Amino acid sequence: MQALVEHIEKVTGSGNIGGEQLLPYFEERSYAKKAMLQEEGKACLWYFFVVKGCLRLFFTDDNGVEQTIQFAPEQWWLTDLDAFRNGRRSAYSIQALEATEVLAIDAHRYALLPEEQPLMQKYFRLVYERAFAATLLRVQMISRMSKNDFYELFASKYPEFMQRIPQKVLASFLGFTPEYLSELRKKKMEKKS
Amino acid sequence: MQALVEHIEKVTGSGNIGGEQLLPYFEERSYAKKAMLQEEGKACLWYFFVVKGCLRLFFTDDNGVEQTIQFAPEQWWLTDLDAFRNGRRSAYSIQALEATEVLAIDAHRYALLPEEQPLMQKYFRLVYERAFAATLLRVQMISRMSKNDFYELFASKYPEFMQRIPQKVLASFLGFTPEYLSELRKKKMEKKS
Repeated sequence: MQALVEHIEKVTGSGNIGGEQLLPYFEERSYAKKAMLQEEGKACLWYFFVVKGCLRLFFTDDNGVEQTIQFAPEQWWLTDLDAFRNGRRSAYSIQALEATEVLAIDAHRYALLPEEQPLMQKYFRLVYERAFAATLLRVQMISRMSKNDFYELFASKYPEFMQRIPQKVLASFLGFTPEYLSELRKKKMEKKS
Repeated sequence: MQALVEHIEKVTGSGNIGGEQLLPYFEERSYAKKAMLQEEGKACLWYFFVVKGCLRLFFTDDNGVEQTIQFAPEQWWLTDLDAFRNGRRSAYSIQALEATEVLAIDAHRYALLPEEQPLMQKYFRLVYERAFAATLLRVQMISRMSKNDFYELFASKYPEFMQRIPQKVLASFLGFTPEYLSELRKKKMEKKS
């Protein structure tokens, strides 16, 4: 629970909430690398906060290719939020990219949490405000930049994260084929040497 | 101010805030059709709540074509949120598609508002939670649906809104050329008759 308490403090600037207040709302769970936390088309019952490790959100397109839409490393939240909020089936699958520890909350307790713990109103306001601002920024980058420039930017902003995720998953997130990404990396290496 | 009070009540389910409490934070402004509220590359100082009319957020791409990213009809908020939150220049322009009345708030008062009026924590939490969930849903639709299906869905969900916005603007939002959109509409009309 300590990871969430620290994140709340970082985001809100307030230390007015402790692990013992949050504990009743969450389940602590561990998943092995490649474990599925959510399957596409099944009821979307859980929202995950990543304590350690990394998750990805993806779907399988009409050609059978897995398309990764979002990553969640430490201190990120992940679910199919539209399905979770409305009690619907998930349009996405969620998989652990590494051995991953999460805090899981169901929709009922997620609705209660900010009502009973007022600091969580501010916390989630700021978490979603940032997340929404970031999606607008991403739309702009995808619209404005070439794929190569987008790769360069991503690599310069998240160098350590890039090393953690499989090439195939990264390629689908960036909208590349795995072959194209591999070519791009080779060219970059040659430039450096 | 009544439009915002009503929206707060609708979103939060609480009538615990009145126009007189909100008034000090906002400026009421009116714009003529086609007026520019924000120019791309200029400081992003204002966040707009639409009382009446409709705004659009767009940028001009490398080929000189205006690309519309987002619409804001009545009871929607609009700004380049990343730029607004971080005191940067706007990456987008904002234009009135009709004669439009807005409530405008600057970054300083926007930061104060939820601190001084606690109900606004919940209000903005829910506004952004929905907005973020909607962007995920949009990514999914764009990735999964053909352009024609996306058009059909948009037309069936927002039939009145479709009538309000210029064809050229709608085409850029849907990722069509104006010519393609016009063809599509003609075909639909023929099918009906």
